Amino acid sequence: MERQPGDRIEVFAVPGMPMVVPGQDLAGATLAALAAGGEQLRDGDVLVFAQKVVSKAENRFVDLQSVAPGPEAIRLAAIVDKDPRFVEVVLGQASRVVRARTGVLIVEHKLGLVMANAGIDRSNLGPETGEDSVLLLPEDPDGSADALRAAIRDQTGCDVAVIINDSFGRPWRSGTVGVAIGVAGIEALVDKRGQHDLFDRTLRVTVIGHADEIAAAASIVMGGADEGRPVVVVRGLPAAAAQGRATDLVRPAHEDMFR
Amino acid sequence: MERQPGDRIEVFAVPGMPMVVPGQDLAGATLAALAAGGEQLRDGDVLVFAQKVVSKAENRFVDLQSVAPGPEAIRLAAIVDKDPRFVEVVLGQASRVVRARTGVLIVEHKLGLVMANAGIDRSNLGPETGEDSVLLLPEDPDGSADALRAAIRDQTGCDVAVIINDSFGRPWRSGTVGVAIGVAGIEALVDKRGQHDLFDRTLRVTVIGHADEIAAAASIVMGGADEGRPVVVVRGLPAAAAQGRATDLVRPAHEDMFR
Repeated sequence: MERQPGDRIEVFAVPGMPMVVPGQDLAGATLAALAAGGEQLRDGDVLVFAQKVVSKAENRFVDLQSVAPGPEAIRLAAIVDKDPRFVEVVLGQASRVVRARTGVLIVEHKLGLVMANAGIDRSNLGPETGEDSVLLLPEDPDGSADALRAAIRDQTGCDVAVIINDSFGRPWRSGTVGVAIGVAGIEALVDKRGQHDLFDRTLRVTVIGHADEIAAAASIVMGGADEGRPVVVVRGLPAAAAQGRATDLVRPAHEDMFR
Repeated sequence: MERQPGDRIEVFAVPGMPMVVPGQDLAGATLAALAAGGEQLRDGDVLVFAQKVVSKAENRFVDLQSVAPGPEAIRLAAIVDKDPRFVEVVLGQASRVVRARTGVLIVEHKLGLVMANAGIDRSNLGPETGEDSVLLLPEDPDGSADALRAAIRDQTGCDVAVIINDSFGRPWRSGTVGVAIGVAGIEALVDKRGQHDLFDRTLRVTVIGHADEIAAAASIVMGGADEGRPVVVVRGLPAAAAQGRATDLVRPAHEDMFR
């Protein structure tokens, strides 16, 4: 049976990634870990980085001891039963509050992402930071993905794509799934409208959240608790020199029926 | 670098699947196609079946010419600008209408799934059905997954898991992603609460939509338009003899903030 492009993909963790610290050359660390593990990148590979390591490398830490909550944060903190300083930091990253209930604070991040706590959390922050440190999303995740992609090309000559993923909760469905918050060098959306299906009817509504599906696949291998596999290679996708952006995956307000 | 369970997965299409027709032995057809392609299943493999082929094998076709729309379907059809007979069939599968706007009819399916058109569509239905045929979801997708799993075990002795996936749109995000609507032999949700992260703090909110992430990974390989890859094998996941159900992934009403 002849192989077709894209009919088999591999998803594997970059072995032995070091702890990532602020200022670290994340591309260099990834390439060193790959080399130590006997792996080499290939053109067309997609590297998926967990948001947390990108944020750490970019030193997106905030020390809650330096935060003075304002009245809105204090009011909301009482509703959601969270630290008012934490809520202040979340509001600083948000363009609006979507839902606030006991234990739950869902906002629209300035990047357009609707997510719990503006994507800020405290787990896996490392002993060098105090109990009171929190970690923001990268300032510009698409830009971070661009930079990682360019650094990998500079250091290896390989034309890879980069996705930065994070775990999102969802309305109506339990459990989190990996989602693309930064994209470089690959389509974020694949538009199949106008293509024909097997029986030559025109497909109606088929725009695929391609980068989100890749982000989810990588998330399977990353694990989430103590696996320590923050960088994953997805190999075997049909090559597509494309310039998608994670912002393509943010539904425009006029199409959003769930504001 | 020593391999760890789950640090590398493969996702590959079952090559050369035949067109699936009502009454077909889908497990047998899959095993025959695998054998013809020189592939053998292994214990712990996860087989992901596109909803469409499961529905076809179960003959879940409805001929719209046999449907007489009621007043509610006629009223809604005018709002959403769809065939009233189609809307009647959608309502017959639904427990409530979530959103109805021009071109958009999102309902809660009787199975609990919130999805456009109750998961019913007309594409890729095959020339043997008329323009007026539509295809419903399987009656009991978890049960269908059980049956496929049992049939594969009977015919091969292999202990595989089965997921039935479908493409769902999402609030706030553009593009569809693969989602698990039927699950057998694997955890649907992986609960990491109580586990410790790398720095020995207890993780707070980490319940992972494991079967949905696998469904999304399979969807990458399936394609969607004319690829004709409706069955995908996911290999290399850590073995977990588990009895998850797709219904585990349906958020209970009391936790649902977006009704």
